[in-house]
Amino acid sequence: MTSDGSTHSHIASTDREFLTDFHEVAKIGATPAGGVERQAATPEDGLTRQWFTAWARSRGWEVRVDGIGNQFACWECVPGAPYVLVGSHLDSQPLGGRFDGAYGVIAALHAAQRVRQAVEEGARKPVHNLAVVNWFNEEGGRFAPSVMGSSVYAGLFDREEMLQVRDLEGIAVAEALAAIDQLGTDTPPTAAAYAEIHIEQGRILEREARDIGVVESSWYTQKLDIEVLGEQSHTGATAMADRHDALVAAAKVVLRVHAVTQNFEEEAMVSSVGQHVVEPNSPIVVPRRVHMVADLRSSSPEIVQRAREILLGEIQEIAREHDLTIDVNDFDIREKRYFPAEGVELAEKAAANEGLSSRRIETMAGHDSVSMNTVVPSIMLFVPSVDGVSHCEREFTTDEDMVRGLGVLTAVAGELVSGELAPEAPWSGKS
Amino acid sequence: MTSDGSTHSHIASTDREFLTDFHEVAKIGATPAGGVERQAATPEDGLTRQWFTAWARSRGWEVRVDGIGNQFACWECVPGAPYVLVGSHLDSQPLGGRFDGAYGVIAALHAAQRVRQAVEEGARKPVHNLAVVNWFNEEGGRFAPSVMGSSVYAGLFDREEMLQVRDLEGIAVAEALAAIDQLGTDTPPTAAAYAEIHIEQGRILEREARDIGVVESSWYTQKLDIEVLGEQSHTGATAMADRHDALVAAAKVVLRVHAVTQNFEEEAMVSSVGQHVVEPNSPIVVPRRVHMVADLRSSSPEIVQRAREILLGEIQEIAREHDLTIDVNDFDIREKRYFPAEGVELAEKAAANEGLSSRRIETMAGHDSVSMNTVVPSIMLFVPSVDGVSHCEREFTTDEDMVRGLGVLTAVAGELVSGELAPEAPWSGKS
Repeated sequence: MTSDGSTHSHIASTDREFLTDFHEVAKIGATPAGGVERQAATPEDGLTRQWFTAWARSRGWEVRVDGIGNQFACWECVPGAPYVLVGSHLDSQPLGGRFDGAYGVIAALHAAQRVRQAVEEGARKPVHNLAVVNWFNEEGGRFAPSVMGSSVYAGLFDREEMLQVRDLEGIAVAEALAAIDQLGTDTPPTAAAYAEIHIEQGRILEREARDIGVVESSWYTQKLDIEVLGEQSHTGATAMADRHDALVAAAKVVLRVHAVTQNFEEEAMVSSVGQHVVEPNSPIVVPRRVHMVADLRSSSPEIVQRAREILLGEIQEIAREHDLTIDVNDFDIREKRYFPAEGVELAEKAAANEGLSSRRIETMAGHDSVSMNTVVPSIMLFVPSVDGVSHCEREFTTDEDMVRGLGVLTAVAGELVSGELAPEAPWSGKS
Repeated sequence: MTSDGSTHSHIASTDREFLTDFHEVAKIGATPAGGVERQAATPEDGLTRQWFTAWARSRGWEVRVDGIGNQFACWECVPGAPYVLVGSHLDSQPLGGRFDGAYGVIAALHAAQRVRQAVEEGARKPVHNLAVVNWFNEEGGRFAPSVMGSSVYAGLFDREEMLQVRDLEGIAVAEALAAIDQLGTDTPPTAAAYAEIHIEQGRILEREARDIGVVESSWYTQKLDIEVLGEQSHTGATAMADRHDALVAAAKVVLRVHAVTQNFEEEAMVSSVGQHVVEPNSPIVVPRRVHMVADLRSSSPEIVQRAREILLGEIQEIAREHDLTIDVNDFDIREKRYFPAEGVELAEKAAANEGLSSRRIETMAGHDSVSMNTVVPSIMLFVPSVDGVSHCEREFTTDEDMVRGLGVLTAVAGELVSGELAPEAPWSGKS
């Protein structure tokens, strides 16, 4: 396998064009270790958006940007009909991988262009219009919560509230979007159905040597906002017995969050603390406050709820032991959701028609497709991740696997445009 | 007791002037909960420096600022002779107390002014000149290491190296000092002896109802720079067994640092982690790196060294258990030091002459006097701290205790100017 897509004698020229585009976009915000740094609404995110706009306009697509920074490349072939949306996100985690999100948007552009050509050549009869979408802030590393743009579109989050969310430096979403000229005023296209392709970010497809994962359901997830409030004092002059060290209590909370999975079967849930800020953060001051976010996920809502109960009890025990306050609040609860069975079958057929193996799979990670599936029939496809690693610079998927996924996505998008899974009443975005 | 010094019918008018000045300076960078926020070389630190300069110049003192931002108010009464320095620091911890440092500088200004009047009135014959000093960055919360200005003056730290130290936002000491117009070029006065008064920051004087603590020795201290290097991954999609979570390993290190004191007698040592930064610090990313600073202190160097050995072993055990790397480096080692016995006796006599009780005491905290004591005979005095709390907004010392301390400091400074403890060869600062 090669990583730059420059020499694939067995690959079709249209697939080579896709790979060239993919590897070109990977240069935007590229890090020395092979990843990308393109957090939401940063200048680097702005550059990928310029690339998206230029690519689409040069091929005759109308580009719209809505009031939460979602970008749409639209083609109207059935006047007044709703749109099949195909896409993902171009933003990344800090020091993230170059595949997460970007693969799905660039594959969507090429898949949509192929479907459009088929329609224009009379090879496919359209029932719906077609648009490619680059959702704003799927990652949530800079602005929480994640999956922001598609959740606003789906009416799950309030747009005005999200525009006021601030990063750790106090910059609001609205300011950051305006700074890269991506706080739009366009009306987003009305959706009829949604399709997305993404890297798996796990090792099931690799372990079982399957080409395509067809997502059946998403895990139940929730976050806990945890604030430990101790008392600031001098690290030298204050006796150990007189301290109320917020960091020591916080360290015990981190370990309890990590260990809570052991109450359940192996791999039945995951948990972690990803964000953790100490105040005042001076080498010779006993910490006053630690603010952290814990992330709990499982296929089973009951397991997450039981883990949360165990943690709440343990956290209050830690607060008592250290004679300080620990406040815990639930947020970002995402219900377990099933993708429509007809869509799963449609995707399985499309893979088989391409001569590829597939399996049904759950997604532990959040995706824009999970938001979209709450409002229109949605299809989510996975391609294999080498070693299952993601959200880091060594995230990797082969060119061959990306091209295979593009073929299936093209077939799926074509069927959706022809009216498969069409809803009884088309649905209009809220952003 | 009152906190604003406005009504003390039993207090002399010169003491009232001192209290008025003290409570005036406490308004600079004041926080709602009664503390101050005046970290080194911030605009608020600049305001206290303007106050210092105006106070001294209006009373005929020559103000000098050296190449690391130390401020000196100088009075030359014996042409060519070295100086007795009296002072402390006006910078604070983040959300720090209004007494730590500031009390010592303002008391030094008033003590020096009284000694000067006695000399001018012929009541005291001087052997040395006299200067009040406001040392740069004693706290070290913004720029590490702490006790920076006096350590550069004493030749313990390199000036050029310290000017390049950066805060968490990447701003260098040299830039920050220049921004508040305090990167000076003046030659600092040559020291003959040093005296400083400070709040105790512990509860020994309060517990034993003593007015004055006379510091005999400083604790042995050292810091450990600890870097935990794990692997960044997705909090949702990565199985627990596949993670190398830097924060989980770091939490265990925090708890080991906290618990290491239990290997020794109660109150024989203190230890803590005050600075602790997580990367990339995103709610849905398993942390890649944690950088922290641990602080170990004891009256006994052997105890700190033994604690360090225990921790190094335990930290490597944690690294093995989590299959990640933890690098540990020693820095900021400060030897146990004794203040000269003649100085301790001089201070005890001065307290007794004022009708005050005193006791000999060790300092667990670092102070500018500890640096100065490496190069000239130095005297360190403490006044009581209510509840022993410090480095926080509820730090408190009564007006009466501050006034008592000022009396003793005035007597000590007078004796030093008259040649008590005079070194055989005067010593010139290195900054």
